[in-house]
Amino acid sequence: MSAPVRQVHDVPADDRAFVAAVDAALTTFLRAEGEKLIAISPDGRHLVDAVASLSSGGKRMRATLCYRGWTAVADPAAVDVVAAGVALELFQTAALIHDDIIDRSDTRRSVPSVHRRFEALHAEQGWALDGAHFGVSAAVLAGDLCLSWSEQVFGSLGPAAASGTPARLIFDRMRMEVLTGQYLDVLEEVAGPQRDPAEAVERARTVSSYKSARYSVERPLVLGAALAGGDPDLIDEFSAAGLPLGEAFQLRDDVLGVFGDPALTGKPAGDDLREGKRTVLIGYALQDAGADDAAYLSSCLGRPDLDAAAIERLRAILTDSGALRRTEDLIGQLHRTAVDRIGRLAVPGEVRDALVGLADRAVTRQA
Amino acid sequence: MSAPVRQVHDVPADDRAFVAAVDAALTTFLRAEGEKLIAISPDGRHLVDAVASLSSGGKRMRATLCYRGWTAVADPAAVDVVAAGVALELFQTAALIHDDIIDRSDTRRSVPSVHRRFEALHAEQGWALDGAHFGVSAAVLAGDLCLSWSEQVFGSLGPAAASGTPARLIFDRMRMEVLTGQYLDVLEEVAGPQRDPAEAVERARTVSSYKSARYSVERPLVLGAALAGGDPDLIDEFSAAGLPLGEAFQLRDDVLGVFGDPALTGKPAGDDLREGKRTVLIGYALQDAGADDAAYLSSCLGRPDLDAAAIERLRAILTDSGALRRTEDLIGQLHRTAVDRIGRLAVPGEVRDALVGLADRAVTRQA
Repeated sequence: MSAPVRQVHDVPADDRAFVAAVDAALTTFLRAEGEKLIAISPDGRHLVDAVASLSSGGKRMRATLCYRGWTAVADPAAVDVVAAGVALELFQTAALIHDDIIDRSDTRRSVPSVHRRFEALHAEQGWALDGAHFGVSAAVLAGDLCLSWSEQVFGSLGPAAASGTPARLIFDRMRMEVLTGQYLDVLEEVAGPQRDPAEAVERARTVSSYKSARYSVERPLVLGAALAGGDPDLIDEFSAAGLPLGEAFQLRDDVLGVFGDPALTGKPAGDDLREGKRTVLIGYALQDAGADDAAYLSSCLGRPDLDAAAIERLRAILTDSGALRRTEDLIGQLHRTAVDRIGRLAVPGEVRDALVGLADRAVTRQA
Repeated sequence: MSAPVRQVHDVPADDRAFVAAVDAALTTFLRAEGEKLIAISPDGRHLVDAVASLSSGGKRMRATLCYRGWTAVADPAAVDVVAAGVALELFQTAALIHDDIIDRSDTRRSVPSVHRRFEALHAEQGWALDGAHFGVSAAVLAGDLCLSWSEQVFGSLGPAAASGTPARLIFDRMRMEVLTGQYLDVLEEVAGPQRDPAEAVERARTVSSYKSARYSVERPLVLGAALAGGDPDLIDEFSAAGLPLGEAFQLRDDVLGVFGDPALTGKPAGDDLREGKRTVLIGYALQDAGADDAAYLSSCLGRPDLDAAAIERLRAILTDSGALRRTEDLIGQLHRTAVDRIGRLAVPGEVRDALVGLADRAVTRQA
């Protein structure tokens, strides 16, 4: 029994208030911590500004999911869920800073990625030596700082997040999973061509599950429920609903990474192809396209110099091979599973409605 | 009144037992956490092995200083100081992994640095695309994983390290300081040539203080004292003794980075010159060498292609300008200050003796 697919709604008023509180708390935190860096040297401002600038542009999806998990528990413990949201958003900012180094991305959230921002500062100031390497170095450090801050804020949650609690185990596991998933992702870029194409979709789904589905959706949701003192059965049900929702979210991301509108995504057209991401979408095409098309596709993945004509041809291969349709079918199927499981959650109806709204937006979004 | 410089001794038996316990706990932790990664994918082993390999080679200086601070407090609280040592060593491993990316170092602790290790794996396996970039990407992620693990272990210390405690404040501040210090270090490499050479020594001392003196010596020492429940006055005295000891330690490192024996340091001769580190040693030379020598020195810093003859000429400039002598004088002066302040610490005599031993080794070491 699956609930009907619902209309996409704006974020409800209570989520909006939560996001505003997270934004304000993040700004306050970064200002206070930033002053400590600037006290060491005025040049510390470069790091602070880079983190603040990137972190200000987020949609706060993970924080909102944590809030949703938290509000779902009838009697949430007196834990600061806004701080939990800040910890998640700082972790996400760190992950993005490092991810952009790994993916050699020039832009993020429609502004220069952090390593490019530092590279631009180097050029503006006419500094010596290699500006690109300076940019990467500074971004590695900015990401590390942000990771440390994330932890500092998470640690401030007190007994509900202390060592050995369900919330702390989830948070620790979440970090391990996303980092492992990201490693498997970059490994597949280089090792994938040698590996069995018949298993490419399965490998891509493992990457997608750990790098994104669990990290971006399932873990934040169950973290919120755990912080509020939710019982283990409820946490398991949230997990079962969050996983397909998260996987659908990532598959939509994979499609947008090739077919998305740069004006909406904030990233150049076809960026995932230039990065060489071997996603589920690509896996289907490698399996189902003709030998020539599959070989052309494989030879293009990871080439930073792909031009608009090549991107167009690759899009045609992904469409004509049926890979796009199979991916869309899988997104639809995962969405239905998620909505079905959300419908069975033993939580207030308004929580279920909000989660279905999130599921709808996760798969219909254009950015 | 300063105590006489003492003989260098082996690590005392109790420190050795502590280090052995840290090594064993680290191995156990990495094995248990590693199994979680390998359960996600057998390829997760690459990350685990890289971290385990690098972390096994450490001298455990920071952990030992933490232990020294801890034992100095007459009645240490029932906190697991071995776990605190593991947290510090995991943080240090993370810092080294990322530092080697930043410094483009090929070796660390006499084995390939983590990014080079992954690059070598790429070559061995004949994988596609850019092996050097794969190496850097994997090392960014391995360092992030290690940072998360460090925090996970620190969080397990319980109430003595909970949010708002002196120990937690020290740990958080330590991370912020070393990351800021590292940023100022890479900034000086690129911005230094434009900045006032008369202030180069002062800037280098700021970098040295934050990147190393506080991080490697002062903070671990006071962290141990704080974890054991030491009172604020004692913590301040430890801080006052640890800072000059730490600065002397870093200045010795700077000298070894140019004049050290590669067979002992595990790093190629003159590596710091190729990296372009603008240390106190370099700052003195830029001030005191003749204009031609200073210009030659400045033009060579950060050139990865410096050959043995160039390294020899640069060593001669550093010696003939008096920069090496001035640095050695400063090391001696800082060592005397540290030993003097250690002598005044209101702690058992055996603790003072052990700290003086550490101070001696910090400045006389050859690796």
